[in-house]
Amino acid sequence: MPELRKDPIIGRWVIISTERGRRPMNFSVSPPVMQGGFCPFCYGNAEQTPPELFAVRPSKDSPPNSPDWKIRVVPNKFPALQIEGGQDKVGYGMFDKMNGIGAHEVIIESPNHDATLEQISEHSLVDVFISFRERILDLRNDKRFKYILIFKNHGIEAGASLEHTHSQLIALPIIPNLVREELEGSLSHYKLKERCVYCDIIRQEVSDKIRLVSENSEFVVLSPYAPRFPFETWIIPKTHSSSFENADKNIYIALAKILRDTLQRMNRILNNPPYNLVIHTSPLEQQNNEYYHWHIEIMPKLTRVAGFEWGSGFYINPTPPEEAATYLRDSRP
Amino acid sequence: MPELRKDPIIGRWVIISTERGRRPMNFSVSPPVMQGGFCPFCYGNAEQTPPELFAVRPSKDSPPNSPDWKIRVVPNKFPALQIEGGQDKVGYGMFDKMNGIGAHEVIIESPNHDATLEQISEHSLVDVFISFRERILDLRNDKRFKYILIFKNHGIEAGASLEHTHSQLIALPIIPNLVREELEGSLSHYKLKERCVYCDIIRQEVSDKIRLVSENSEFVVLSPYAPRFPFETWIIPKTHSSSFENADKNIYIALAKILRDTLQRMNRILNNPPYNLVIHTSPLEQQNNEYYHWHIEIMPKLTRVAGFEWGSGFYINPTPPEEAATYLRDSRP
Repeated sequence: MPELRKDPIIGRWVIISTERGRRPMNFSVSPPVMQGGFCPFCYGNAEQTPPELFAVRPSKDSPPNSPDWKIRVVPNKFPALQIEGGQDKVGYGMFDKMNGIGAHEVIIESPNHDATLEQISEHSLVDVFISFRERILDLRNDKRFKYILIFKNHGIEAGASLEHTHSQLIALPIIPNLVREELEGSLSHYKLKERCVYCDIIRQEVSDKIRLVSENSEFVVLSPYAPRFPFETWIIPKTHSSSFENADKNIYIALAKILRDTLQRMNRILNNPPYNLVIHTSPLEQQNNEYYHWHIEIMPKLTRVAGFEWGSGFYINPTPPEEAATYLRDSRP
Repeated sequence: MPELRKDPIIGRWVIISTERGRRPMNFSVSPPVMQGGFCPFCYGNAEQTPPELFAVRPSKDSPPNSPDWKIRVVPNKFPALQIEGGQDKVGYGMFDKMNGIGAHEVIIESPNHDATLEQISEHSLVDVFISFRERILDLRNDKRFKYILIFKNHGIEAGASLEHTHSQLIALPIIPNLVREELEGSLSHYKLKERCVYCDIIRQEVSDKIRLVSENSEFVVLSPYAPRFPFETWIIPKTHSSSFENADKNIYIALAKILRDTLQRMNRILNNPPYNLVIHTSPLEQQNNEYYHWHIEIMPKLTRVAGFEWGSGFYINPTPPEEAATYLRDSRP
């Protein structure tokens, strides 16, 4: 059973994952991504993954785990957290821990091994977002879970261990630190101003234009004012909305259009960089609120995080966001 | 002039470093470490660095920048922060920024290009610590600075851009987020218990023994209870002390012995891993206090930080610290 342990100084929780238990000899700095070899996510290999939790198929009559799929959601074969069990919070001398319960799922975004996320059709990308929503709606019935994080690692340098396009979902029994900081910051802005801080950011950025990359009817894309990483890019819905899963299909269609366009701009400017993409959304118990505003953050992996950052939580970014936005804005196919 | 900018949601400061201004074409995921080529840190190349700020030489009569040196401290040729200027805090609509003033220095720990930190003599390692202290004592006279961070990146994967052994010092006009969290956590433990939280950790770990790696008269080495990274290792002075620069030479001698031993253990177990080493110490204005306890954290780079961590501030560690400690404790030359 994995454990959640709390740092006794700053209160940060970590997952000590026993399933993945790695001995010294099992570490390699560059884990090999399956290339050319066998891929469990490919069309025809559905029996190599745990049984599916959700799928999108051309025909509604097809049974689960049958081969004619477009998108599949399956449990992670090496989960960081375990789905069965209770929390069992216990103290151990001065230390605190609980059972590492949670869900860890993989969303396989295409049966085609070679497609990247921006290469699959707009229609399929909408289905990917609907798959995310369906999984959140299912998992939020489980009262043990407080937060659901959806993220994508693209490329070895961004932490991907399989190259076939996929995202991951982790349902957590606690609200993670960074999310809590965003919630507290947003709530304190709201208490002061009676406005959402992200809505305020959109207003200033659309008016200033210097950090604006693009917009459509529903979304703005911008280089944030104080980004941790070069070319970090946020996609924010224009209308206040606290949770990703509350959006309707029109929103997902507009998101598919602008996400594809944003990734294509990055690929042109940065030569197909590895990246992490994270959906920032409200905790399950605060689904509808006035202060937090869901959005997507994309972080190309262009520099290495080093001792300064690990020691201070402070980041050195060598590219001003105004320059990054200019490059991305001016990029034409 | 570099800028410090504040994230309007969570209040995290970042350095937007214009000196290092990187255009899209200048990013490469694996920056080359100087190998075989010209090295500005090597013996005989002292004129290739900015003039030295401090040095250790065999003879006290040798002039600055002369070739007979053992340790040199020089300004970073590509500083993240600029030494001249005032803070000039300004608002810009809803955003906050200030001038990126600060010091960014390099401590070249040996004239020998091929020596690693644990290979230089114990005597030289003591001189390295004394160099750190001398620079802190000098820089703390500058009232613009609030915090001095000393860290080392060893190996490309840990962010080193030159392989010749060196550490870096950054003096900052603000207290970084992670340091502030450690201070607040330590202070709240102190208010509750009237004891230092690190002193409490030492007591429990020395008694439990399962996460203890080694100890000598002045220091304990342990795998912390809730580590972010596999084989993360802390070196903590046994006697309460809030600031690294307040230690006397006997402490530095004991530290040199145990740091060399710890790095040698890691090298044997993990096959000479890349690592980050960070000195955690009190802010300049809180040099002597009862609640914070200086220490060193060493983080071998064995896994990649990915979307989950960047999105949540929550870490998945695949190696329980009890296992890591067992391997390190049992390692014999």
